[in-house]
Amino acid sequence: MRPSKRQPDELRPVSLERGVSRHAEGSCLVKFGDTHVLCAASLEERVPGWLKNTGKGWVTAEYGMLPRATGERMRREAAAGKQSGRTQEIQRLIGRSLRAVVDLQALGERQITVDCDVIQADGGTRTAAITGAFVALSDCLAWMETRGMVKRAAVLKDHVAAVSCGIHAGKPVLDLDYLEDSAAETDANFVMTGRGGIVEIQGTAEGEPFSRAELDALLGLAEAGIAQLVDRQKAVLGA
Amino acid sequence: MRPSKRQPDELRPVSLERGVSRHAEGSCLVKFGDTHVLCAASLEERVPGWLKNTGKGWVTAEYGMLPRATGERMRREAAAGKQSGRTQEIQRLIGRSLRAVVDLQALGERQITVDCDVIQADGGTRTAAITGAFVALSDCLAWMETRGMVKRAAVLKDHVAAVSCGIHAGKPVLDLDYLEDSAAETDANFVMTGRGGIVEIQGTAEGEPFSRAELDALLGLAEAGIAQLVDRQKAVLGA
Amino acid sequence: MRPSKRQPDELRPVSLERGVSRHAEGSCLVKFGDTHVLCAASLEERVPGWLKNTGKGWVTAEYGMLPRATGERMRREAAAGKQSGRTQEIQRLIGRSLRAVVDLQALGERQITVDCDVIQADGGTRTAAITGAFVALSDCLAWMETRGMVKRAAVLKDHVAAVSCGIHAGKPVLDLDYLEDSAAETDANFVMTGRGGIVEIQGTAEGEPFSRAELDALLGLAEAGIAQLVDRQKAVLGA
Amino acid sequence: MRPSKRQPDELRPVSLERGVSRHAEGSCLVKFGDTHVLCAASLEERVPGWLKNTGKGWVTAEYGMLPRATGERMRREAAAGKQSGRTQEIQRLIGRSLRAVVDLQALGERQITVDCDVIQADGGTRTAAITGAFVALSDCLAWMETRGMVKRAAVLKDHVAAVSCGIHAGKPVLDLDYLEDSAAETDANFVMTGRGGIVEIQGTAEGEPFSRAELDALLGLAEAGIAQLVDRQKAVLGA
Amino acid sequence: MRPSKRQPDELRPVSLERGVSRHAEGSCLVKFGDTHVLCAASLEERVPGWLKNTGKGWVTAEYGMLPRATGERMRREAAAGKQSGRTQEIQRLIGRSLRAVVDLQALGERQITVDCDVIQADGGTRTAAITGAFVALSDCLAWMETRGMVKRAAVLKDHVAAVSCGIHAGKPVLDLDYLEDSAAETDANFVMTGRGGIVEIQGTAEGEPFSRAELDALLGLAEAGIAQLVDRQKAVLGA
Amino acid sequence: MRPSKRQPDELRPVSLERGVSRHAEGSCLVKFGDTHVLCAASLEERVPGWLKNTGKGWVTAEYGMLPRATGERMRREAAAGKQSGRTQEIQRLIGRSLRAVVDLQALGERQITVDCDVIQADGGTRTAAITGAFVALSDCLAWMETRGMVKRAAVLKDHVAAVSCGIHAGKPVLDLDYLEDSAAETDANFVMTGRGGIVEIQGTAEGEPFSRAELDALLGLAEAGIAQLVDRQKAVLGA
Repeated sequence: MRPSKRQPDELRPVSLERGVSRHAEGSCLVKFGDTHVLCAASLEERVPGWLKNTGKGWVTAEYGMLPRATGERMRREAAAGKQSGRTQEIQRLIGRSLRAVVDLQALGERQITVDCDVIQADGGTRTAAITGAFVALSDCLAWMETRGMVKRAAVLKDHVAAVSCGIHAGKPVLDLDYLEDSAAETDANFVMTGRGGIVEIQGTAEGEPFSRAELDALLGLAEAGIAQLVDRQKAVLGA
Repeated sequence: MRPSKRQPDELRPVSLERGVSRHAEGSCLVKFGDTHVLCAASLEERVPGWLKNTGKGWVTAEYGMLPRATGERMRREAAAGKQSGRTQEIQRLIGRSLRAVVDLQALGERQITVDCDVIQADGGTRTAAITGAFVALSDCLAWMETRGMVKRAAVLKDHVAAVSCGIHAGKPVLDLDYLEDSAAETDANFVMTGRGGIVEIQGTAEGEPFSRAELDALLGLAEAGIAQLVDRQKAVLGA
Repeated sequence: MRPSKRQPDELRPVSLERGVSRHAEGSCLVKFGDTHVLCAASLEERVPGWLKNTGKGWVTAEYGMLPRATGERMRREAAAGKQSGRTQEIQRLIGRSLRAVVDLQALGERQITVDCDVIQADGGTRTAAITGAFVALSDCLAWMETRGMVKRAAVLKDHVAAVSCGIHAGKPVLDLDYLEDSAAETDANFVMTGRGGIVEIQGTAEGEPFSRAELDALLGLAEAGIAQLVDRQKAVLGA
Repeated sequence: MRPSKRQPDELRPVSLERGVSRHAEGSCLVKFGDTHVLCAASLEERVPGWLKNTGKGWVTAEYGMLPRATGERMRREAAAGKQSGRTQEIQRLIGRSLRAVVDLQALGERQITVDCDVIQADGGTRTAAITGAFVALSDCLAWMETRGMVKRAAVLKDHVAAVSCGIHAGKPVLDLDYLEDSAAETDANFVMTGRGGIVEIQGTAEGEPFSRAELDALLGLAEAGIAQLVDRQKAVLGA
Repeated sequence: MRPSKRQPDELRPVSLERGVSRHAEGSCLVKFGDTHVLCAASLEERVPGWLKNTGKGWVTAEYGMLPRATGERMRREAAAGKQSGRTQEIQRLIGRSLRAVVDLQALGERQITVDCDVIQADGGTRTAAITGAFVALSDCLAWMETRGMVKRAAVLKDHVAAVSCGIHAGKPVLDLDYLEDSAAETDANFVMTGRGGIVEIQGTAEGEPFSRAELDALLGLAEAGIAQLVDRQKAVLGA
Repeated sequence: MRPSKRQPDELRPVSLERGVSRHAEGSCLVKFGDTHVLCAASLEERVPGWLKNTGKGWVTAEYGMLPRATGERMRREAAAGKQSGRTQEIQRLIGRSLRAVVDLQALGERQITVDCDVIQADGGTRTAAITGAFVALSDCLAWMETRGMVKRAAVLKDHVAAVSCGIHAGKPVLDLDYLEDSAAETDANFVMTGRGGIVEIQGTAEGEPFSRAELDALLGLAEAGIAQLVDRQKAVLGA
């Protein structure tokens, strides 16, 4: 039995709330159970130096955690004077995941930055962030479409969402919360598209190495879980 | 007429929502109209070096803004590698304001850090933060009282709240929103206790210098506004 | 009786020595008793990015303390790798105070930076710095006038000076030295113009909150003290 | 045909040269073709704070590149004042990979740091680093064994090595060099043990998402490649 | 003829003013012509980690320049967030020079830090700083002697002073000012003791390399110049 | 007898290996006994701001040490977030030494950066670096000559090499290794040209001051040693 009483292939309650920011061009408060991430997409009429005069745009992400999003207060990164290696890893992952479904040529020479700030953490913050960031990005593109800047459907090639899986107490399970994550032997994050293509897979043996069979089981759970998450994205986006 | 149609002495709709963080010992989501600040109090069993073995504790605050809390996206301070002068000014002010109503001896050798993170900004973030931080601090002390660590009533000597006032279009007004703040000739922040004592006053002429009479008018507005804010604190804290 | 034997409304001996730097366009060594601040104004033919092509100039200030300006040696900020929150607060205050009496349009697209470096500290360094920085700025503008760049009288709209007041041993006193400052219940800094307008007021209760009556008493002391300081500025500037 | 004329399942020439540092307790210069990484293991009689008095040790890694290891000179990270996100990601990966085959209890309260410095880069620097770092770590443990500090066989539970695979020109290939890496549609890094367990898998779609079948093909190539690398480790270590 | 009309072997007017700081245990305002450096010695009852429990003390120095000490305003190092390579070179040189005449065992486990801050620069700031720092250090030790902490004569083994020489317009000259320094073909700094021993010599060819004969000529000038500086130190110290 | 059994005027075995980097325009692995430094010259078509549109180029150097180049592992400067004062001193010295033999006008508006990374240290890393950096620079200019960009002979005015000398056990010796360097009373570094001109001399008394006679002895050793080093440069460069 999982600590949360969920079935091995059961997601936590998922919610995707659009339009939560008065200022951002697109925004989404995503909840995977007690993990809450505020995603805000900002449009800027500039691109990184290496894209100037290429006609192509850029989509990037930044990630942060409020100091008391976690059980123990963590040091504020702004006060520490730098972002941790973990923070940088996660924000690079979110950016790559979003770009996997974006046609940068169709976006034009503009940059969209999606800020993903963890308000409360209970495991799976990066996968929730990716899932919510897609909604914020989609709404930002819709905002641009109403202003005649782009066609959202031309920029967004597919949906993208993410989920974690792991081997907990010897058993493959979907969408680990903090309690399971801390005790898991293996922990893997999957990012996939609405059509089932794999965008990113990151698996780590926390204790014993894992086998191909175990990887296959995790992949199977992830495919089913991400399909549900994409359905939720479609439902809230009305598409 | 004010842009928001409010009377000169009218606060924006105020809300103080307790217990919004699953992890923090005390927390409060404070809203002054469209300015929303999440305040989370964290208890730690340690004190700054200069207080070791004095029997006295410490209360401090940190302040931050989500990058897209504002109309234009601002650079993330953690990415920039330092906190701005403005951020440091504000967090020092919040800390001083809270300590003004705390008996550090009665707290004992422990530190409470109140993180004030601006989720959405529309003027007056520092005054909202002080007002909400008091509620989070009070709840943190209540949490400690249930564990026999302190008597809340012995630690908290009074209530404390804050509001901004300014001269806008030639007229003294209470609780400026961003639109008024940007256009104000004079901008002042007041921090006062429940018994009406002044804890901090910071007034700045943005354009023309102001007179003693104008300062008096602002002070009068602030006294009335802060009295209402303290009433709201008492109402939500059930005291 | 004050530790320094001064009357409650008595300034420390004030001296404003012009032309102390061989290189700066304007300079002033200001002394408020044992507090000595070297103020040097530097003219640069550039403005911050947001002012380019606006026809307007900028006046700003930087503040520092020699490590052994104080009773205990303090860590050198350049070695620590950053300016403290206190330093940033003070230099922002000096800059705002000077700009309050400058017509940035009449200055033209140039920047004047006034460096205020505390050679020796005995309380009131920020108020001495503002008072001396005005003299350095005025001499810098005179230097420019002799080169046909501006009319000083068109750029400088008024005089500006500053003083601290506080409640010490239950009594309102003017121009606190370090001994009084450390023991004061309330500490306030006032910046005013030659015509008596208030540019900035910052009052903080160090211990008990203060009342409106006490604030009024401090304001009265400040008005009289600043009037004397402006007289000294006029005397040394020969205006 | 691959640019390097290799077969799809063919590694670049691999060399593992032990004892290349006069000072380090263990060292290895690893070459995967034109990618050369110097790995040096340093023993220190201290552990990170969270392991004090637990009887457990720690193994960690740091990664760097000489500025001209690459085709274009890169900025020196020490001069830039920080390590890039990429550097931090890689050194965290190397550390996790080594710890996967180490019994930290058997190591005792000591830390081994393996510095992996890229002398010349041609793709696959992180996988070469892991493969060479294992040899340096093994030699460091042998050095300790001759001094009666540990039993190497008790500390090292298995071998560990790593290789990259990718889909290049539509075809799964093993051990990508820089030319292939830049053009690959999918790029994955695999870390496995001598017994074939998976320690870490990181796959990224650079362009189009990839399928489960493609992931399986890459995994198959990696298993065979890593088996060869482990054979080389055994050969040079004489075990 | 030198720009300053001095003879080739003529120092600028030298002044050493003791006791200029109200707080420091020893202080000296040193002037080499228009180069003015404030030297303040601070005693602290602690030593760097590597000297703990050795019975030996430490003497070190820090160096800084006010931003407008020079003809063009320089960026404040505290604002830039780091000390330049030049600053670090100079402060290391001052520290080594002072330690050359100090018996660290006789000092006991304490640290003296001499802050050398350039108030106004006209070439030769590092040599003026060393010469003045010796006076500040000597007075700090006298302060300690009056409190029975050390015998100054036991700690100070000799005098130490410094001067620059250079080849200007083809001719060896003593004590270069800024104008000469900028145009010198060769620039050398000499640090010597009262008994004529060489503590440090740093010579640099700015344009053409120099010969042994030229080095000899510079060394001869330096010996005579430093002898005069040591005489001035003795005169002001009354020894 | 020297610890290494060398004669007082005997260099360690010297080797200069060209073309060790696949990517750099010029490179050299220099060995002075157990001190090994990899020097890589990188050509860039840009110059520092102050040289723009002057027609002149720039030659500069950066210096680093692998963390375990030394007997005890040192902290990685990239991880520490800054270069030490020692590192900055050395890289400034290398840059000045190279520029002493370069005609920056003949180079044209381009920059050559020579990275000197210490792979293994046993004393004399800066002198080995200068000697090897000259070879890398020369090869970079040869690379440019084959592309018609410059005439190497027009850019390089002379050879430049460096060596350390010191007084060890009371006796002047050439080219100190780490063991001698740690115990030397006086330590001096000399940089000279092929024609015997002095480019830089830096001598420091570690213990007792040294005399002119001792300096002369060191200078004599250095002249002979550098002549041998320049012969080796000529031999490997085939000139």
